[in-house]
Amino acid sequence: LGAGRLSERILRGDVRAASRLMRRIDDAEPGAIEELQELFPRTGRAYVIGITGPPGSGKSTIVDGLIASLRKQDKSVGVIAVDPTSAFTGGAILGDRIRMQAHATDSRVFIRSLATRGSLGGLSRSTGDCIRVMDAMGQDVIIVETVGVGQDEIDVAQMAHTTVVVLVPGMGDDVQAIKAGILEVADIFAVNKADLDGADRVVRELRAMLEVRRAVSGLTRAPGRSHSLAAVRPGNLADSQWEPPILKLSAARGEGVDKLLSSIYVHRDFLDRSGERQKRERSRAAMQFIALLRERLLGSALRKLERERGRLDDVAARIAERTADPYQLAEEIAGELAE
Amino acid sequence: LGAGRLSERILRGDVRAASRLMRRIDDAEPGAIEELQELFPRTGRAYVIGITGPPGSGKSTIVDGLIASLRKQDKSVGVIAVDPTSAFTGGAILGDRIRMQAHATDSRVFIRSLATRGSLGGLSRSTGDCIRVMDAMGQDVIIVETVGVGQDEIDVAQMAHTTVVVLVPGMGDDVQAIKAGILEVADIFAVNKADLDGADRVVRELRAMLEVRRAVSGLTRAPGRSHSLAAVRPGNLADSQWEPPILKLSAARGEGVDKLLSSIYVHRDFLDRSGERQKRERSRAAMQFIALLRERLLGSALRKLERERGRLDDVAARIAERTADPYQLAEEIAGELAE
Repeated sequence: LGAGRLSERILRGDVRAASRLMRRIDDAEPGAIEELQELFPRTGRAYVIGITGPPGSGKSTIVDGLIASLRKQDKSVGVIAVDPTSAFTGGAILGDRIRMQAHATDSRVFIRSLATRGSLGGLSRSTGDCIRVMDAMGQDVIIVETVGVGQDEIDVAQMAHTTVVVLVPGMGDDVQAIKAGILEVADIFAVNKADLDGADRVVRELRAMLEVRRAVSGLTRAPGRSHSLAAVRPGNLADSQWEPPILKLSAARGEGVDKLLSSIYVHRDFLDRSGERQKRERSRAAMQFIALLRERLLGSALRKLERERGRLDDVAARIAERTADPYQLAEEIAGELAE
Repeated sequence: LGAGRLSERILRGDVRAASRLMRRIDDAEPGAIEELQELFPRTGRAYVIGITGPPGSGKSTIVDGLIASLRKQDKSVGVIAVDPTSAFTGGAILGDRIRMQAHATDSRVFIRSLATRGSLGGLSRSTGDCIRVMDAMGQDVIIVETVGVGQDEIDVAQMAHTTVVVLVPGMGDDVQAIKAGILEVADIFAVNKADLDGADRVVRELRAMLEVRRAVSGLTRAPGRSHSLAAVRPGNLADSQWEPPILKLSAARGEGVDKLLSSIYVHRDFLDRSGERQKRERSRAAMQFIALLRERLLGSALRKLERERGRLDDVAARIAERTADPYQLAEEIAGELAE
């Protein structure tokens, strides 16, 4: 296969070519970036949905239901399952995957699992690349499923147009204990396993939390990600603020998934009408660019240190012996490189 | 408090000064780096133990037991609990912490929790800074507890001199399903909750996995992290290879923790005798330096783009519209900066 051939086949929707390019990107094979570059102008059409939540909250079952609903609407679907926890629970999660593979024979559903690997930032980078490949091959909707347990996952969630945070009863004493980072990225809250005791409590606590947030934002009117549908509610709500709905689901019984998809469409329409979608595209582009720039800068710095025989080893030895100060050395060498 | 005052107090072992500096580092307050720089030459004395394993494997109970054993030997102990999962399970984990706080009244035990926050790489960076502060204040042993569910945690595990990977029965069908990344960093395996069914199976599977690894390394003799105590075992084991022991524990019943600490000491002696400790110090120093360098380089690049009014916004808008290629732009701008 010559250079450029994969990208051409991907643009025609060839699933095997897409899989091959993703593998090449994962393995950092030479030429893979060039293929991505060729695809880039043809991306930006897919709608990206993020599904995040703790292990055991039934995310895969929800994704499974969303795939079915989307296929009924004749949409093609890409799924990227990001599983850093598979480092420990590979076996268990595999079971969920296999269930999801009920759609594996459907040629318009493309499922890809990504595990955490590579260097820091590797997860969000390879997820971004995966989204671009699926986007270029023409998937109408791309679902990114992440276990929301770290900064990496928050970053990944922010790649989505609409982010659904899945919660379940019994996660702990208090929704308030959940760190702000995850809740802040939520465009929609899905309380799954709503047949279990405590589901109403989770809903009440989320509602109370949103009340507080609304009151605070009514006072401060901070510009930011949050914009809204809830047109006129005088006194405490800006016209352009999105109020995350709280939905109850029993995905395993097939209940609530259609409602979730409708909510996602409502949010998409809000993004389009408010200009927020364009804003998000731009901040996503800035994030991607900064990540690439950081890689290039560090790459050329390290190559330069390598050319100066053993300089990195020397630096490391001096720091390890505490005869040099890493902070000052980093400053000096960054200065040299900028000259 | 003037500049430099905190670091002086920390070097005298002042716990409140150490807490204050850690908070300042977390909040990226100006002057915090300078305090760290002053501490740096006085670091490198503490022995760092990493404890990593899945949620619910009883890591906190093991840490609790290790603190008690170390205190009996009159060692001062620092504990850094890294909890990215607290994004979801804040409540539950808090309970463990409170138990650990039985040692809170002991002035020679210093416990600090770190949650995931800040930018990519933030977790390993702030853990590294925390280790340096505790080291400078004179803690003999520093225990870093991480939930081993992502690349961040693998990076953190690699900051330790001795890394203990905790496993429990019933984690999934197969130890083989556990990703290599976590197993590769293990210097010691601790199979906790050994009173549960299936503990022997976990031990057997780990043993089988190590057999395979030993056979492979006997063939390839790959240089790397693995070096060994197991002096002469002709045919398949190099003299300098460390064979990770597999220990059974019931930490909640207080069984096996002393044995674990003895194993950690055996590993420490191995590191000293084999020269591996110095090697690890150097590679840790190189990692720290590269992280600092990356930050400086990106920082000055972004400041330069900011000075050129709106250039980053312009770049982001062009990428979002697909009129510019982020890969090529990153290359170009990195080139400009290096000129």
